[in-house]
Amino acid sequence: MDILALAQPGVSGLHPYQPGKPVEELEREMGIREIVKLASNENPLGASPKVAAAIAEQSEQICRYPDANGFYLKQALSAILGVGGDQITLGNGSNEVLEILFRTFVGAGDEVIFDAHAFIVYRLLTQASGATAVAIPSQDWGHDLDAMLLAITEQTKLICIANPNNPTGTFLSKEALASFMSQVPKQVLVVLDEAYFEYVPVEERAPTVEWLAQYPNLCVSRTFSKAYGLAGLRVGYLVSSAEIADLLNRVREPFNCNSLALAGAQAALADQEFVTRSVELNRTEMARLESYCQERGIDYILSYANFITMKLTPADEIYQALLTRGVIVRPIAGYGMPDHLRVSIGLPQENDRFMAALDELLVEARP
Amino acid sequence: MDILALAQPGVSGLHPYQPGKPVEELEREMGIREIVKLASNENPLGASPKVAAAIAEQSEQICRYPDANGFYLKQALSAILGVGGDQITLGNGSNEVLEILFRTFVGAGDEVIFDAHAFIVYRLLTQASGATAVAIPSQDWGHDLDAMLLAITEQTKLICIANPNNPTGTFLSKEALASFMSQVPKQVLVVLDEAYFEYVPVEERAPTVEWLAQYPNLCVSRTFSKAYGLAGLRVGYLVSSAEIADLLNRVREPFNCNSLALAGAQAALADQEFVTRSVELNRTEMARLESYCQERGIDYILSYANFITMKLTPADEIYQALLTRGVIVRPIAGYGMPDHLRVSIGLPQENDRFMAALDELLVEARP
Repeated sequence: MDILALAQPGVSGLHPYQPGKPVEELEREMGIREIVKLASNENPLGASPKVAAAIAEQSEQICRYPDANGFYLKQALSAILGVGGDQITLGNGSNEVLEILFRTFVGAGDEVIFDAHAFIVYRLLTQASGATAVAIPSQDWGHDLDAMLLAITEQTKLICIANPNNPTGTFLSKEALASFMSQVPKQVLVVLDEAYFEYVPVEERAPTVEWLAQYPNLCVSRTFSKAYGLAGLRVGYLVSSAEIADLLNRVREPFNCNSLALAGAQAALADQEFVTRSVELNRTEMARLESYCQERGIDYILSYANFITMKLTPADEIYQALLTRGVIVRPIAGYGMPDHLRVSIGLPQENDRFMAALDELLVEARP
Repeated sequence: MDILALAQPGVSGLHPYQPGKPVEELEREMGIREIVKLASNENPLGASPKVAAAIAEQSEQICRYPDANGFYLKQALSAILGVGGDQITLGNGSNEVLEILFRTFVGAGDEVIFDAHAFIVYRLLTQASGATAVAIPSQDWGHDLDAMLLAITEQTKLICIANPNNPTGTFLSKEALASFMSQVPKQVLVVLDEAYFEYVPVEERAPTVEWLAQYPNLCVSRTFSKAYGLAGLRVGYLVSSAEIADLLNRVREPFNCNSLALAGAQAALADQEFVTRSVELNRTEMARLESYCQERGIDYILSYANFITMKLTPADEIYQALLTRGVIVRPIAGYGMPDHLRVSIGLPQENDRFMAALDELLVEARP
């Protein structure tokens, strides 16, 4: 029997997302210990200690179904964001809220516009929806908003914008975004994926959540996976008009965030001091890595996020050689960037390990 | 702007799943304490103590993304089930594996067959897929397998069978299921939803996982939410041919089970003694509730699961009156059973509370 023949169109062309290599996998494969993982833009400081305490308390009730509506987490987010709880959709990571958004609005015959070097999940979700991907060439590795506007057609259903972008770290100014939003037709949805929002200096952030009052076609997604340090918990959220949120919540599975995720995210939200500390560490260490690149003449993309993307060729060989030295970084050939590696900002000693390992390779490569 | 006009067909007709009322919600609404929740078929014994320990350990690494492939949990399941790890798809509850199955195979023009009083998620997923629901009238509240076979057409893509069924607790014998499977055309997928599998006496269980070798169109789903006591963690799995699992894993989101869910489920699986104890408690208490019904002449459906469904009219009034007495049971009008209430089997003292509260109402109702 040909199982594939029974599947929906689009499924056969899907390839599973390639996550960063887990530490355990490298240990299993290579028998290496003391591995430094700078591959998945995780928070090197871990998470607020309040999170583990909240998880421990909640795990006593693990036999009970989660609150299907995430009442308390939404209440906390609502207070911080200044929007109604009915404007929030919770997801199993911001990946899932994006997926729910696609499943609610995007289908065959629709076009989805995104940057050619943007977060690869936009492309995967477009394909899974049976819609047409319209990938716009980047400008200096960042989004070309003018070209994106020009690409809008009668078929355009959704525009995805990652700001800062992954895997490049590029950032769109509030002025550029405001001008863009004012030119997008109202029947075209725009999702601003702000997974790395907290790393942007406060004075440079666009007031995107405030814009929701003005733009009913706007959605803003954020995550607890980065600055809040909860990548393992899977909690993200999307803020939108109440009308959009109502539809998303119909498509959403009832218990998509488990009870530990809800409790942990709520505890993380209450510890903004931890987020501040994480962002400060990131800034200091980013400066060290930038200096390192400048001193060695390594071409890198200026980043507003918690990683830095460097031109290192041959990238795949360097990636492999770093692996054998116990340092995991991220190849991004799948993002159309075969000559770059993305390096998450780690703890000072982790970044030292990376820089020392790369120095060894650069010395070896010299003729 | 009309947001609904932008949505995919099927979305407007969706209504969110109505979960059992959470204890906190009843407390908020009515100011009642010491509430007994017998509404969501949760394990009244909680979970194995090994689970909380595994969660606490894993939560130290919560800043790291989960293992996208669930390597260790699949390895453990593989050993117990006697199938390859490549035949297993993990989900955020068995609800999600069913959703992934639908999204992979079911679309507009397809027909999905299920029992009229089966788990309501089959109907919701069919609608969300844009497919046609073919609901077969029950026979004595159980699946009418002959009628289901007769309903198969050229358009039939999937048949969903819950065994034991929720919300009726009815059970199909291995002989009946074996005969059914032998008559289903090979191009029609069958999912046996065995969420309540562990409560079925060992000698009565059909060897459904063994049947996979014989029936490449068969899928078996199970969950950690019931006998393992992990409803709050959201872990379910589907066992199938490697070919089907490969497609499901392409559609699956990479980190659909969070890292605490993976660790907790693995720990739960390693404590089969806890499951045995849970099943024994369920059997003893089920017998007490059956006797209670018999003594009072209450009509009930013989159940193989961890709940018992009783004819209690007017059901909605009795549900509300029980709520005011701090006992939450489950109205199932949404399952086409407006005259029944579903009562989860609790701890002895919880069942006592339910029976005493119901006795009060029955006395009050006497003319």
